[in-house]
Amino acid sequence: MLTSRRTITIDWGDCDPADIVFYPNYFRWFDASTAAHFKAAGLPKPRLIADYGVVGFPMVDTRAKFHIPSKHGDEVVIETAITSFGRSSFTVEHRLLRGDKLAVEGFETRVLVAKTEDGTGLRSFAIPDAIKALFTGASL
Amino acid sequence: MLTSRRTITIDWGDCDPADIVFYPNYFRWFDASTAAHFKAAGLPKPRLIADYGVVGFPMVDTRAKFHIPSKHGDEVVIETAITSFGRSSFTVEHRLLRGDKLAVEGFETRVLVAKTEDGTGLRSFAIPDAIKALFTGASL
Amino acid sequence: MLTSRRTITIDWGDCDPADIVFYPNYFRWFDASTAAHFKAAGLPKPRLIADYGVVGFPMVDTRAKFHIPSKHGDEVVIETAITSFGRSSFTVEHRLLRGDKLAVEGFETRVLVAKTEDGTGLRSFAIPDAIKALFTGASL
Amino acid sequence: MLTSRRTITIDWGDCDPADIVFYPNYFRWFDASTAAHFKAAGLPKPRLIADYGVVGFPMVDTRAKFHIPSKHGDEVVIETAITSFGRSSFTVEHRLLRGDKLAVEGFETRVLVAKTEDGTGLRSFAIPDAIKALFTGASL
Repeated sequence: MLTSRRTITIDWGDCDPADIVFYPNYFRWFDASTAAHFKAAGLPKPRLIADYGVVGFPMVDTRAKFHIPSKHGDEVVIETAITSFGRSSFTVEHRLLRGDKLAVEGFETRVLVAKTEDGTGLRSFAIPDAIKALFTGASL
Repeated sequence: MLTSRRTITIDWGDCDPADIVFYPNYFRWFDASTAAHFKAAGLPKPRLIADYGVVGFPMVDTRAKFHIPSKHGDEVVIETAITSFGRSSFTVEHRLLRGDKLAVEGFETRVLVAKTEDGTGLRSFAIPDAIKALFTGASL
Repeated sequence: MLTSRRTITIDWGDCDPADIVFYPNYFRWFDASTAAHFKAAGLPKPRLIADYGVVGFPMVDTRAKFHIPSKHGDEVVIETAITSFGRSSFTVEHRLLRGDKLAVEGFETRVLVAKTEDGTGLRSFAIPDAIKALFTGASL
Repeated sequence: MLTSRRTITIDWGDCDPADIVFYPNYFRWFDASTAAHFKAAGLPKPRLIADYGVVGFPMVDTRAKFHIPSKHGDEVVIETAITSFGRSSFTVEHRLLRGDKLAVEGFETRVLVAKTEDGTGLRSFAIPDAIKALFTGASL
């Protein structure tokens, strides 16, 4: 499976009065890491939307475990991988590292969605094999 | 001119390591106050979008002056008024009060926009007199 | 167990290009709901910090399940309860309702922390029975 | 005057239902650019706080002009310079560029503050010449 990495510098405004990251920001960064992961696989989200006629990959279920707090000025690395594919869903794992320490783990279950025929709702969209292959390295 | 008011409780996550509001949040609240102001006038933003075929009223120019900091647990009141209308632009003023003290002032110049014919861009949209009258109390 | 409720109006800026809530905002609201829950129990977070010499109750593990998306202009209700207490940890559950439908569920494990003696780190802080009793209704 | 630059990739969650950046995020980025500017000058904010006993440089007055909207996936560059120093205040200008086009301008007046003697409030702090020299290149 493809693993991608990106570095985040933690900003003053990301932290709360205890001078540690306000935890919803981790989910914001994980969401951007999932988008960056698609870009690293050769399918940036704007092109995914344009080429496949989908709306995005909203979250169905997400979890994070916080092991070590980080504070403003810290540099952290987020490692991201898609760990499994379903018909229209997939799971993503993020490992946020400070130096060589695992600081936060993130887990996501997402589903690829498109607009319904009448344009008023969202429906699940079967993940094409061509997309899966970008992450698994499978040859089609 | 119509003035609307709403009360905000400042949350832990709105504050920074100095234990005062991280100032971009004031702009977030002012944006919501402008939306609430349209709702108070009888034209909530979702209906504005649906009825007039517009996309929204993006900001052209905004400014804020910070007189007194606020911290988590504080309750503040935001008073909002549209102070002038142009052809497709309008100006909004927000006064954020802590008790009877003026804590923050916000100033906005916005423009009503719709999609261009080809759907790829945005164009200014002349503000209908019926919309202006909701805020000025003018009879049409 | 004490259950508290608060109503949120979803703002334009809370939503993403798919016109649904950008999910990290749910965690922001859940965090504020936990703070509001302490306030409803008679122990607002600023007083918790002042009276007990603690820093806060950072998150150890959190999860959310997303059943129904919400969009700007929607009003939702968040119901919050502490479902169990450990020595210094406690679990919180949030149910975000749109009308009578369960839209999002949130789960939190938090730990009460104070500064270490040397002031440079954080340590867990045993939850006093007086605090637990505020939520369980136990008589001391 | 020292000018620093940093590149931002605009994330999905930074954008609103009109698929353009929700403007309070520009202020978040400008705040981080001011912090990065201090770091580029050799005085990262954590060290400024530790070495000079200050709390930070809260905003007194800020303004932004929005010329061109940006959307998710766009890369933009923010150029930052301190344009003047007062006794304890200073002004910062940010130019956010998309390609060679000026997309957003930001203006800030900030003041360096320390805790008051009794630790309950904030007071202005005269900017040491050694700090000014980091940005002006003046020899002391």
